[in-house]
Amino acid sequence: MLGAQRRIVCMSSAFRRGLRQTLRTQENILMMNGPAQKRSKVLTVDSMNPHVKRMEYAVRGPIVIRAGEIEKEMEQGKGFPFEEVMRANIGDCHATGQKPLTFLRQVIALCTYPALLVTTDLFPADAKERARRILNDCKGHSIGSYSDSAGVEVIRKDVATYISNRDGIPCDYNDVFLSTGASDAIKIIMKLLLTGKDGDERAGVMIPIPQYPLYSATTAEYNAYQIDYYLDEDNKWALDVNELKRALNAARQHCIPRAICVINPGNPTGQVLTKQNIMDIIKFAHEEKLFIMADEVYQDNVYGSDSEFHSFKKVLHEMGPKYADQELASFMSTSKGYMGECGYRGGYCEVINLDKDVKYQLLKSISAKLCPSVSGQVAMDVVVNPPQKGEPSYDTFMKEKSFVLDTLKKKAALVTDLFNSIEGISCNPVQGAMYAFPRILLPEKACIEAKKRGQTPDSFYCFQLLEETGICVVPGSGFGQKEGTHHFRMTILPPLEKVEAVLGKFKEFHLRFLEKYK
Amino acid sequence: MLGAQRRIVCMSSAFRRGLRQTLRTQENILMMNGPAQKRSKVLTVDSMNPHVKRMEYAVRGPIVIRAGEIEKEMEQGKGFPFEEVMRANIGDCHATGQKPLTFLRQVIALCTYPALLVTTDLFPADAKERARRILNDCKGHSIGSYSDSAGVEVIRKDVATYISNRDGIPCDYNDVFLSTGASDAIKIIMKLLLTGKDGDERAGVMIPIPQYPLYSATTAEYNAYQIDYYLDEDNKWALDVNELKRALNAARQHCIPRAICVINPGNPTGQVLTKQNIMDIIKFAHEEKLFIMADEVYQDNVYGSDSEFHSFKKVLHEMGPKYADQELASFMSTSKGYMGECGYRGGYCEVINLDKDVKYQLLKSISAKLCPSVSGQVAMDVVVNPPQKGEPSYDTFMKEKSFVLDTLKKKAALVTDLFNSIEGISCNPVQGAMYAFPRILLPEKACIEAKKRGQTPDSFYCFQLLEETGICVVPGSGFGQKEGTHHFRMTILPPLEKVEAVLGKFKEFHLRFLEKYK
Repeated sequence: MLGAQRRIVCMSSAFRRGLRQTLRTQENILMMNGPAQKRSKVLTVDSMNPHVKRMEYAVRGPIVIRAGEIEKEMEQGKGFPFEEVMRANIGDCHATGQKPLTFLRQVIALCTYPALLVTTDLFPADAKERARRILNDCKGHSIGSYSDSAGVEVIRKDVATYISNRDGIPCDYNDVFLSTGASDAIKIIMKLLLTGKDGDERAGVMIPIPQYPLYSATTAEYNAYQIDYYLDEDNKWALDVNELKRALNAARQHCIPRAICVINPGNPTGQVLTKQNIMDIIKFAHEEKLFIMADEVYQDNVYGSDSEFHSFKKVLHEMGPKYADQELASFMSTSKGYMGECGYRGGYCEVINLDKDVKYQLLKSISAKLCPSVSGQVAMDVVVNPPQKGEPSYDTFMKEKSFVLDTLKKKAALVTDLFNSIEGISCNPVQGAMYAFPRILLPEKACIEAKKRGQTPDSFYCFQLLEETGICVVPGSGFGQKEGTHHFRMTILPPLEKVEAVLGKFKEFHLRFLEKYK
Repeated sequence: MLGAQRRIVCMSSAFRRGLRQTLRTQENILMMNGPAQKRSKVLTVDSMNPHVKRMEYAVRGPIVIRAGEIEKEMEQGKGFPFEEVMRANIGDCHATGQKPLTFLRQVIALCTYPALLVTTDLFPADAKERARRILNDCKGHSIGSYSDSAGVEVIRKDVATYISNRDGIPCDYNDVFLSTGASDAIKIIMKLLLTGKDGDERAGVMIPIPQYPLYSATTAEYNAYQIDYYLDEDNKWALDVNELKRALNAARQHCIPRAICVINPGNPTGQVLTKQNIMDIIKFAHEEKLFIMADEVYQDNVYGSDSEFHSFKKVLHEMGPKYADQELASFMSTSKGYMGECGYRGGYCEVINLDKDVKYQLLKSISAKLCPSVSGQVAMDVVVNPPQKGEPSYDTFMKEKSFVLDTLKKKAALVTDLFNSIEGISCNPVQGAMYAFPRILLPEKACIEAKKRGQTPDSFYCFQLLEETGICVVPGSGFGQKEGTHHFRMTILPPLEKVEAVLGKFKEFHLRFLEKYK
């Protein structure tokens, strides 16, 4: 039947409809009277949405599933050559032992159970003041009521103040909307950019390779055309404008290019873009009429002594009036930084220079989802509006924040150095974010063995690493990499002493692996 | 340029590509050298995603925007013939004064700030025990870490136990995933059902009219074909199978029908389906090979003395092995019921009889969004696992729950009776959910006046109601209604004494309106 249906695509639309209906009726009759009465499922892998089928998200892919299986097998008493699985696959700070920020959790607890505002002196005055201020702006004074779709107004205003202070440029809270993590906002913006057409009239979105796989998953899901541009590994993963042009020109054959996504600081690549590099990107986007989507969720995670975070907005502003019409969305999250509150799904997006009618459409498009989690919004508020000098919680907050960032900085250096000390591995400095993305030179024999097992060489390597050491990392192929190169992504999140121990085990494994397949 | 681009759609694909590229180059040259240097936006209403443009969500539409304006104008001292705006447009319980459940908030507060587990005796032992149990199942014992994409395992198991107890049928927690409110899960399932094709090969989804506008907004956004079936107002908004057949057969000309959505108890219509009616729907869906999407978020909100909630799953099970392959997704939320925790965006979905490979795809599709808000998941846990008899919090919990449900029941009767006592209004009994959906007979002259103002007659009526009384309700046209009929949706959420007062004002307005336009 399906074959017949496929064959009728060249006929006129009306004729096709008629024929298809006849075929369906026949199918129904067959189903009702035929000897094989079995009614097949409505949804099968053949009949389901093909775009969803194409989505991949390696950060939670097969190797992570295997890690979970090993943990269950260990519980059941099965022996492995290690004590525990070390999950270095995902930027999940609290999962690897990072403690929540006291003040942040106090404010959320007070908003959750306002009786605590009066019945106990367990909470400092500044936490209580913040909670009261937020509750005052929630309908019915409850975080259990819906907020506006764009978020609680006072929180949006706090975000705007934070951005103004960060950049030294005014920020209008009407350009800010809160979101369910950054992922949600990225999808909301990318959705606006679609053309609603198929084939080579699809929207094209420029995505770095290597990339955070949310981007490829979202273009697949939305049937947008993914325009890969390669980051320059030999130049600390910078963006090379010639490469951007090459990628864009090649893609014009296949799509209507609409946007460029940039992740800064980089995920999985850990680079922090220079101001010059950002200027080049903005110039390119402006000339080529591309919307800029700036994933800036790691803006607090900068470790390199000669690195500094420059927001796209600030650089754009500094470039003067010629660029004053460049559309830009910047994304931020509560999940990363020093707070690592992934489970709260807090985030915001600032969109500047958006056409006012499109902004109306944007707000309409988020209204059907009602609002992002209000407790996640409260988490976002504390991030953008932390205790100020002189307030009771200031010292503790700063101590906790510095501890996290200082430790990450140490680990960033440690991991970079260690990887570069090993034969056959090279690793760009982890200047920012939470990941190392070392390149591994794999012996020919290992590649042949991988092929035999139906795995990519880097997947094969990572699976072996997991089985022998318990270290769970994500193969580079899950993020994309230049043909013929191999990488993996490892988070720098586990506690310092664990990272040190694990790197020792890693080195032994690697040398054993090289020896085995040399 | 655009016109020229449009005209080339009949040419061969390669030729089209070439021509389009030439046109674009010309466009670039024009832009760079032409006298009008103005660079237009990447995103305009003309160039943006047309499917997003088609989305509508009346529950937060223009009348609600006007209500907000009035509130701001009142603050600024402008006089109105009423003291305050009564927002009866949205099912936002806490916003209209309902108090959060003490136990639910205690458990979330303890999970948020676990120091409270040891430093204070403000919390009862059972709340502490629940919090400990959930934290034990969170990575790093923090609700700030990501959960599995399907949710925290122990919470999914609690949901499964709740469903098993509700229906007296086993429920496998592997069939349950948690979601960001029910809306998120509804979109996840509908997305799977798409064909990935355009025109008359799009997926068709059957949607009740009147409907909750999330459904129409989602079909528009996904470019699915909305198959309207009309609920039978003369029969308490029941589903008439002949009408389902009519709608389906007509739609086969335009789409590939894949699913039927049913909202029970009904939104905006407030009916509770009889078991016989549900059996008829299941039979119809099974015969026609449709996936059933059962929106059962109001399962606790049943008021009619001769009404009872029957889950689709239970009825399906009772219909015997012939229907054992019927695919069904059921949606639940923390936002409704007696808890009304809208801001937490908690929800779950149970999907039964899903093809196992499709289930893998479903789980993969949600992994890129990482996980629903964990605090929302905790809220869901308390709903499905409330304090049990003998536990310290049982009495308070039951008292609070009964108070909410008893008051809603009173208001449901009050509102129904009042509307039916007014000339030109008829209202089916509010058997369940949180809404009355009365039909209003509008005089010819009012319809003419509405047309003059570019409004639908029911919008005109609701705007007048708002301006004269401060009562904010949503016109029936936002939910869909039979041609030539007019309705509005009013929530029954404001406090009893307010509802009583407001209904008096409403009656006066209505009679004045009839008088004016008779």
